[in-house]
Amino acid sequence: MADQFHRLLLAAIIFFGLLLSFCHGGVTSSFVRKLEKTIDMPLDADVFRVPHGYNAPQQVHITQGNMDGSAVIVSWVTQDEPGSNMVLYGTSEDNLKFQAKGKLTQYKYYTYKSGFIHHCTLRNLKVVGIGNTTRQFWFTTPPEVGPDVPYTFGPHSYDSNSTLSHYELNPIKGEAVLFVGDLSYADNYPNHDNVRWDTWGRFVERSVAYQPWIWTAGNHEIDFAPEIGETKPFKPFSHRYTVPYKASGSTAPFWYSIKRASAHVIVLSSYSAYGKYTPQYKWLEEEFPKVNRSETPWLIVLMHSPWYNSYNYHYMEGESMRVMYEPWFVQNKVDVVFAGHVHAYERSHRISNIAYNIINGDCMPVDDPSAPVYITIGDGGNLEGLATNMTDPQPKYSAYREASFGHAIFSIKNRTHAYYAWHRNQDGNAVVADSMWFYNRYWGSVDGSITTIS
Amino acid sequence: MADQFHRLLLAAIIFFGLLLSFCHGGVTSSFVRKLEKTIDMPLDADVFRVPHGYNAPQQVHITQGNMDGSAVIVSWVTQDEPGSNMVLYGTSEDNLKFQAKGKLTQYKYYTYKSGFIHHCTLRNLKVVGIGNTTRQFWFTTPPEVGPDVPYTFGPHSYDSNSTLSHYELNPIKGEAVLFVGDLSYADNYPNHDNVRWDTWGRFVERSVAYQPWIWTAGNHEIDFAPEIGETKPFKPFSHRYTVPYKASGSTAPFWYSIKRASAHVIVLSSYSAYGKYTPQYKWLEEEFPKVNRSETPWLIVLMHSPWYNSYNYHYMEGESMRVMYEPWFVQNKVDVVFAGHVHAYERSHRISNIAYNIINGDCMPVDDPSAPVYITIGDGGNLEGLATNMTDPQPKYSAYREASFGHAIFSIKNRTHAYYAWHRNQDGNAVVADSMWFYNRYWGSVDGSITTIS
Ligand SMILES: [Fe+2]
Ligand SMILES: [Fe+2]
Repeated sequence: MADQFHRLLLAAIIFFGLLLSFCHGGVTSSFVRKLEKTIDMPLDADVFRVPHGYNAPQQVHITQGNMDGSAVIVSWVTQDEPGSNMVLYGTSEDNLKFQAKGKLTQYKYYTYKSGFIHHCTLRNLKVVGIGNTTRQFWFTTPPEVGPDVPYTFGPHSYDSNSTLSHYELNPIKGEAVLFVGDLSYADNYPNHDNVRWDTWGRFVERSVAYQPWIWTAGNHEIDFAPEIGETKPFKPFSHRYTVPYKASGSTAPFWYSIKRASAHVIVLSSYSAYGKYTPQYKWLEEEFPKVNRSETPWLIVLMHSPWYNSYNYHYMEGESMRVMYEPWFVQNKVDVVFAGHVHAYERSHRISNIAYNIINGDCMPVDDPSAPVYITIGDGGNLEGLATNMTDPQPKYSAYREASFGHAIFSIKNRTHAYYAWHRNQDGNAVVADSMWFYNRYWGSVDGSITTIS
Repeated sequence: MADQFHRLLLAAIIFFGLLLSFCHGGVTSSFVRKLEKTIDMPLDADVFRVPHGYNAPQQVHITQGNMDGSAVIVSWVTQDEPGSNMVLYGTSEDNLKFQAKGKLTQYKYYTYKSGFIHHCTLRNLKVVGIGNTTRQFWFTTPPEVGPDVPYTFGPHSYDSNSTLSHYELNPIKGEAVLFVGDLSYADNYPNHDNVRWDTWGRFVERSVAYQPWIWTAGNHEIDFAPEIGETKPFKPFSHRYTVPYKASGSTAPFWYSIKRASAHVIVLSSYSAYGKYTPQYKWLEEEFPKVNRSETPWLIVLMHSPWYNSYNYHYMEGESMRVMYEPWFVQNKVDVVFAGHVHAYERSHRISNIAYNIINGDCMPVDDPSAPVYITIGDGGNLEGLATNMTDPQPKYSAYREASFGHAIFSIKNRTHAYYAWHRNQDGNAVVADSMWFYNRYWGSVDGSITTIS
C-alpha cells in the first residue's frame, strides 16, 4: 500500500456526511471543470453551490497538521446542525479501526452567524467522520521528511477560477499549495459580508479538499471593522483556517513553520506585531537556528506583503518588515520568499539591502549569493484587478515582471536542485512564461553553483 | 474656588479607605523624601512599604480619563478584600453630593495572583471612595483645553528614586508626566515576578497619585513568557494601567490620544502591529487629520523605541516603525517626539529621512523645519544600567547626547513658545544640562521662527 516515500492511507467515514479517503498516487480532483473567469462571480455560480443533501459537509479543506507532515487538519462546515465530530479512520473504507474527535467552533461577525465549523487533526493518518449525506474526498500523504525527497509546491494567492483550473491542469502536478494570503475578499462586501467566506470555501474545495494548502494571512484576512463593532483582527480567518502553529513553538496561528518532504517552510505575518521583543520576533529568532538543512535543505518563507515589489501598487509597504528581518534571511540563506498582495507577477535576482546604518548612505539593493529570490505571486486574479502600473525603469534587482495572472510550480528534485516555473493563464497549460533552476543556498556551494546564480 | 484656567474640586471619600481630594494650586506631594539611589532597591525599602491599616488602598495612580482632560481615571489596589468601588465626590470633604462606581479587575500570572485592582473614572470631576483605613490624596485638575493655555509636562521613563526626587524638587513644577514606557521591570525577575508590579506601584505612588501620568507601553510591559504559559502580551500592564483609548477612537489601550491644555498628545505602541492596514495604522491615519492646531497647537508624540538614537544600545530598533510613519510626522508637523528605551539622554535637530524609495540612494537624515525634534528620555535610571557606549562620530542629526540619568520639563507658554529643559541627577535641582526653546511648528511660521530652528 505504501511506496518508499509515501505513506498512504485509504479510509472513509461512517457517521454523518463527509466521506474522506486517502488514496495512493497523484492528486487530481474529479470536480475539475473549466469555467469562464469572472471578476466577481455571482453567488449562484455553480462553483459556489451548496452540496446536495441535509447538512452535507461543505467547504472541505485540508492543511498540514503537525511539524513533519504526518498529520493533516481536515476542516469542514455543516450548515443545518453541528453533526458529529467523531472520526473513524483506517487503511480502507471497510477497515476503520481508529477514531478521533474534532473540535467545533462558530463565530458571529456583525449580523452574520457562521455555520458549524469543524477542525479535526488526523495523525498517522486519521480521517474525519460525520454522516447523512455522503461526499467522498481523498488526498495523498506527503513523503517522510528527508533531504533528497522530491516534492512539488504550488505557490498561490487569491485564486480566480481561471488560475485554479490552470493549476489543476498543469502537467507538473503540485502536491501542496503554499498560499500567500488574501482568501475570500469578504471585506470588500458590505459589512464584510461573511457569506463570502462560505462561498469562497465552497469554490476552492475542489483543490483544497485534496491537497493541503499552507496558509498565510493577508490584509484581507484582518477583517478589522470598528464601525460595526468588529475589532478583533483575523476573527473569521482564524475560526475557519486552523494551522499547526503550536508544533513549531509559535503562540499564534499567524506565524509558524512546517516541514514537508525536503523543505522547511516558514510562514510570517505582515499584519501582526513584528518589532523587536514581540512574540513573532522572538519566535523567528529562535526558529532560524532550528532549521536543519541536512534534513530539510530547502528553506522557503511565505509572507503576504512583498519586500521587493517594483509595481506602483503597494509600493514599499513591505519596507517596515524588511528592515527588521532581512539580515536574518541572508544569514540563514533562505532559498526563496513567496509573497502575494500585489496583483501581478515579479521575480527578483538574489539581492540584499542590509548594509544601511542610517549614516552611511548604503541603501541600494546589491547582488548577494546568500540572499533569497523574492517572488511575488499575488496574481491569482482578484476583485481589485490587475496591477499594470510598474515603476519605471525596472529596478536592477527585478529579474522578471509581468502584469498577468497565473500560477507557479516549485518542484524540488533533490537537495541541490529545484525547478521553478510560472505559467500565465492566457497560455496553454504546459506553456512556461518564466522559469529558473534553483540551486540550494546551503548545498549549492558544494557544486560551486552558488556563485553562478543571479 | 476656580481661577481662570483651573477648574478645581476638593472632595473626599467616606467608604472604605482612600481619601482623595482635589485641591487648588500647585502639586507637591507631602510624601516626598530623598532616598539614596540604588540599582535594585530591596523589597523592604520604605519606598515599597505597604500602607498601614487593614485593606488600605495602595499603589494609587491617576491618569487622564477622557479626551479633553475633564475626567481622571483613579486606580488603586486593595490586598485583603475587594473593598468598595463606590465613589462619593464633591467640591469639599463635607459636600460629597455625587457618586460613581469603579470597575474591579484581577489577574493571574503564572503562580502570582494580583490584589484587587480598582479603576474608576471621575468625570467633571469625581472622587473615589472606599473606606476603613483612610489615606488622603489630592490633585490639580488640568486647565480647559485651549491654544494659549500654559502647561508643563514632565517626560519620564522608568524612574529611579533619584530621578523622581529631582523631578519633584524641580522649581519648574511639572503638572502631568508623559511616561514613555518601561514601568516595573518585573520581567527581569524570575518568572516575571509580578510582586514587582506591586512594589513599583507603591514606589511611584508619591508622584502618580497627585498628578496624572500618560502611559506608553515599553518592551518591559510585554511580559511575554511562553515558557511559563504566559503568552498574552501586556497582560499585567493592561490590567493595572487603564487609559482612555476609546475616547480617541482607538480599539486598544496601546495607541490613543489625549488633549491637555494646549497640547494634543499621541501615544503609539512600538510593540503592537503597525504595518499598513493594521488597527494601529488605521487609527493613526485617521487621528492626524483630527488634530486641531487652533485648539491644541502643540502636537506631541510618545513612543517607547526611539527612531533617532545614536547610542550602540538598541541601535536602529525603531527603524521598522520609522519607515512606516515618519512621512506622516513631517506632513503633520509634529512638534516633538519623546521616546524611552535607551538608558541615556539624546536630543536631535529637526531632521527627516523620508526621501528614500529603494532605488534612489537618498537615505540620509536631512534638516527639515517641518520635522519634529526627537528626544530620548530613557534615562530614569533602571536595572539595565546606563547606556554609555555611543556611536562615533556623533551623527549630524544628533544635537545633544549625554550618558546620564535625569529628567526633563516641557513647559508650554502659549501657542508659539515652549521651554524645554533636561536636568541631570547629579546636579542641583535647578541646574539645566540641556535646553531649547520650541517654536510651534504650526504657529511658528507666523513669527518666522520656523526657519530659525535646528
Ligand atoms: Fe493583499
Ligand atoms: Fe525599553
